[in-house]
Amino acid sequence: MRIILAKSAGFCFGVKRATRMAFDATEEHDHLSSLGPIIHSPQLVRQLEEKGVRVVDEVPPAGDGAVIIRSHGVTRGEMEKIARRQLEVVDATCPFVKKAQEFAAELSADGYHLVLVGEEEHPEVQGIVSYGEEGRVSVVANPEAAEQLPRSSKIGVIAQTTQSFDNFNAIVGVCLRKAKEVRVYNTICDATSVRQQEAKSLAARVDLMLVVGGHNSANTTRLAVICRELQDNTRHIETADDLEPGWLEGVETVGLTAGASTPSWLIEQVVARLETLAGT
Amino acid sequence: MRIILAKSAGFCFGVKRATRMAFDATEEHDHLSSLGPIIHSPQLVRQLEEKGVRVVDEVPPAGDGAVIIRSHGVTRGEMEKIARRQLEVVDATCPFVKKAQEFAAELSADGYHLVLVGEEEHPEVQGIVSYGEEGRVSVVANPEAAEQLPRSSKIGVIAQTTQSFDNFNAIVGVCLRKAKEVRVYNTICDATSVRQQEAKSLAARVDLMLVVGGHNSANTTRLAVICRELQDNTRHIETADDLEPGWLEGVETVGLTAGASTPSWLIEQVVARLETLAGT
Ligand code: F3S
Ligand code: F3S
Repeated sequence: MRIILAKSAGFCFGVKRATRMAFDATEEHDHLSSLGPIIHSPQLVRQLEEKGVRVVDEVPPAGDGAVIIRSHGVTRGEMEKIARRQLEVVDATCPFVKKAQEFAAELSADGYHLVLVGEEEHPEVQGIVSYGEEGRVSVVANPEAAEQLPRSSKIGVIAQTTQSFDNFNAIVGVCLRKAKEVRVYNTICDATSVRQQEAKSLAARVDLMLVVGGHNSANTTRLAVICRELQDNTRHIETADDLEPGWLEGVETVGLTAGASTPSWLIEQVVARLETLAGT
Repeated sequence: MRIILAKSAGFCFGVKRATRMAFDATEEHDHLSSLGPIIHSPQLVRQLEEKGVRVVDEVPPAGDGAVIIRSHGVTRGEMEKIARRQLEVVDATCPFVKKAQEFAAELSADGYHLVLVGEEEHPEVQGIVSYGEEGRVSVVANPEAAEQLPRSSKIGVIAQTTQSFDNFNAIVGVCLRKAKEVRVYNTICDATSVRQQEAKSLAARVDLMLVVGGHNSANTTRLAVICRELQDNTRHIETADDLEPGWLEGVETVGLTAGASTPSWLIEQVVARLETLAGT
């Protein structure tokens, strides 16, 4: 039996990097906190807690060790507070998110009305907009909301990194009718679409497709739905224990992918169990 | 009988301005040439010829009087030649076209690959692209052509002033997939769409709609088609002589508009004849 693991299974570049930085920091700092959970994986947050990383909601007081900044960043106000309190910083903001923050600052300083395509409640969005000038920033979730934008002489458009291109494109179209000049930085990260594309092409050519990740993870569930469209024999599992030996009967190739919040060791456990069951 | 003349009938702002500048120039200069016909109206070109304005294809030699630049502009190379030959210039380039030329120069100097939405053969387009850096400019007529654009780090998009917004919008959408940064200046002039909108609302509320302009003028014919959709009783005429008295029977209000290349005296003659026929 052949097992094919998708290259893009599990954590994206930015989350892998943040995780590594956080674990490295536990070796160097005795007193560590993370401003908000580093990523959406409860298992990983627990592992870090065991190594002494406290999750805090607010910037800790002066003298309180080092602060880890999560992959989707924090607000400019929080960054300034950290600097004022002279806390050490382990900045694990994803470079793509950082870029979006920088574009927000640049566009706003250049007099553009800043339009951020995204969900107002998302922490990444709150971080990015905080770099724009107050009163000249709009968060817009869809083209209908964009229709409500005031007319401006110039509009700058950026996106939350996980937005879909089609939504972004449609909103730019509305902005073109709201201002004579529109400047667009496409800050969409392709990690999600690459993972989905790879899962699709894998699902189409295997006998069994496994998708690993929490049943309550929206992006893992979405991944399983996409695979099932091309491969009836698709299974969404949370851990290696969910694997049923009967599934492997008559199966020559197994495809394997995992959601964005699935840690690599969970994926490795599934691979190990598959190998055991296949007797290879 | 009431006659309602559309405010936007006939020449647009830029053509009116160029015409006025050309006639004013005939008072001041003995030796005058226009680099290409000033506007698309043969009647007007003839009138100017009678006042001594020769239409030339190339920049005249040094010492050859003054040169009129038509409303849709000329190329940077021609402008430089005129300067080198120290000819006097009557620059009747429409300010909106000039703006597009300036944006082309600015975007190109700032390192953007310049995309001009328009028709390659159009003189306005040739003028605008000449302000971009050679080898970094593409003229794109439709989204299919835009698909052939090379990937660039940044793309700047502008439009020929008479383009439709929908085509412009669709091409911007394609550009968003070709570059991470896209800067757009909407240089579309709304003279055409305003004229069409006004004609529509007029056609719907009169008993007879008259559209004045050459039968071989594409934009006048289009105007008549648009009016006919709302008013069966629409007539496309070239001059006041085409008016048939029978058309006015039982008519209480007459609407009147004219294509972009119809001179105002042709429109005035129609109004005068209407008044005579109605005995007002
Ligand atoms: S956190 Fe991940 S999804 Fe993209 S923006 Fe950074 S690589
Ligand atoms: S020539 Fe006329 S159509 Fe617009 S760009 Fe100038 S007013």
